[in-house]
Amino acid sequence: MTFNQKLNQIIEKKRHFLCIGLDPDPDKMPGHLRNDPNRIAIFTARIIEKTKHLAVAYKPNMAFFESEGISGLQALQDLKKLIPPDVLLILDGKRGDIGNTARKYAHSAFKTLGADAVTVNAYMGFDAVLPFVEDPQRGAFVLALTSNPSAAELQNLKSDGKEIYMHLAQLAEKWNTKNNCGLVVGATKPQGLKEIRNLCPTMPFLVPGVGAQGGDLEKVLQFGRNTQGTGLLINVGRDILYAGNSVDFDSEAEQKAEQYVQMMTKLW
Amino acid sequence: MTFNQKLNQIIEKKRHFLCIGLDPDPDKMPGHLRNDPNRIAIFTARIIEKTKHLAVAYKPNMAFFESEGISGLQALQDLKKLIPPDVLLILDGKRGDIGNTARKYAHSAFKTLGADAVTVNAYMGFDAVLPFVEDPQRGAFVLALTSNPSAAELQNLKSDGKEIYMHLAQLAEKWNTKNNCGLVVGATKPQGLKEIRNLCPTMPFLVPGVGAQGGDLEKVLQFGRNTQGTGLLINVGRDILYAGNSVDFDSEAEQKAEQYVQMMTKLW
Repeated sequence: MTFNQKLNQIIEKKRHFLCIGLDPDPDKMPGHLRNDPNRIAIFTARIIEKTKHLAVAYKPNMAFFESEGISGLQALQDLKKLIPPDVLLILDGKRGDIGNTARKYAHSAFKTLGADAVTVNAYMGFDAVLPFVEDPQRGAFVLALTSNPSAAELQNLKSDGKEIYMHLAQLAEKWNTKNNCGLVVGATKPQGLKEIRNLCPTMPFLVPGVGAQGGDLEKVLQFGRNTQGTGLLINVGRDILYAGNSVDFDSEAEQKAEQYVQMMTKLW
Repeated sequence: MTFNQKLNQIIEKKRHFLCIGLDPDPDKMPGHLRNDPNRIAIFTARIIEKTKHLAVAYKPNMAFFESEGISGLQALQDLKKLIPPDVLLILDGKRGDIGNTARKYAHSAFKTLGADAVTVNAYMGFDAVLPFVEDPQRGAFVLALTSNPSAAELQNLKSDGKEIYMHLAQLAEKWNTKNNCGLVVGATKPQGLKEIRNLCPTMPFLVPGVGAQGGDLEKVLQFGRNTQGTGLLINVGRDILYAGNSVDFDSEAEQKAEQYVQMMTKLW
């Protein structure tokens, strides 16, 4: 089964699209954890333990693990074991480099860290993507239209009458020969999401920006699904992770995740 | 002193532009090292020990360290101590992400790993660059025109009569308010290098692609220097690192690095 098929099968079964973003930030953690040398590992493990029945996927943001040094990397290496087989692990590192280097990144992501998919920056073209899409069972989400304020500086430039993000979407369609390629499209640009979905009717979209970044969940559901009603991952990070900061932060995160699942299921 | 000033001062003093790319690949190392659990650390330390009088900068490629897991990260953390103060450490990770995430990457690069500068992918616009250029003493080289075969797919699209890589160069000029921003421009596209230099007369360029990737050293020297004759780092990686694979691989690397320095000094 290819990565895209597996993703859609899980979405069908669970009837929602929740991807939980793991951005473990010591400054936002409950006070009792902040000074623990294993704070990243403990925080992440507790969040996963309480929310794993509510997620289609987890998306660890590599920056938050890297910035902790060795203990962060160790926590990242241990994630795979904590996640049930029907929940996907999407490593968000937005890597992108020449062939021999991309191959090393793909090795770390898929072999060392056990990821099911990654996010990729394709500014360097197909060379930077190929090593991530060679195995049909592993996937890559290519950055198209991102959710951040300055995204438009480059992504909205027009070439041949089409925005750069539309060119990227078109390239990713071409790279999706093994049915394991998707796109990153920010929730904060619903009109762009709609246009990209029209261009790419089946590819899965990973949509960050709901919650802390202000994206509108209903519009994402309306415009983001593919022709089968699946092909969508809605990432929520901070809004779930930091729902509370008491000793029961994990239960508070669970409640918040449950709310998201209910909203999505209601609009299924 | 800003990062760009410091770089130019070192170039002036050493009268060459050699940046040694650290891409420690176990498959290419001498046989006696390949199975050592500390192969990355040993190989890198020996290369630095023998070439540190010949380099303006070292550019570790993060992928090659990451793919070794914990021991690779440890080797990366130890690099700073091995490098003399008049040699710069440029961390090549091509990171690029939304503000809060870019901030974490900047923290790892500059605080945890002690880098003087980084490479950055600015597909997401200024948000992705800002945390790397806030401290004038630390620099960021923004990807403009890369050296790999598929670079043109996106970078050569034209918008308003100008290639995307020219737009990026123009944006980086704007971001260079603290004199610590530069560009990555591949040696394999000398015409592009010339055009970008015309647009950006003073910013430093980090130029990969000489050696294994086939870029022409003379053309890089001809087109790549800034108006003061400095502002250029020519990265050579594989061609130096794997110059030999005997037990004396480090001396063989030294000889090769010396040849590059001589060629550059001759054309100074």
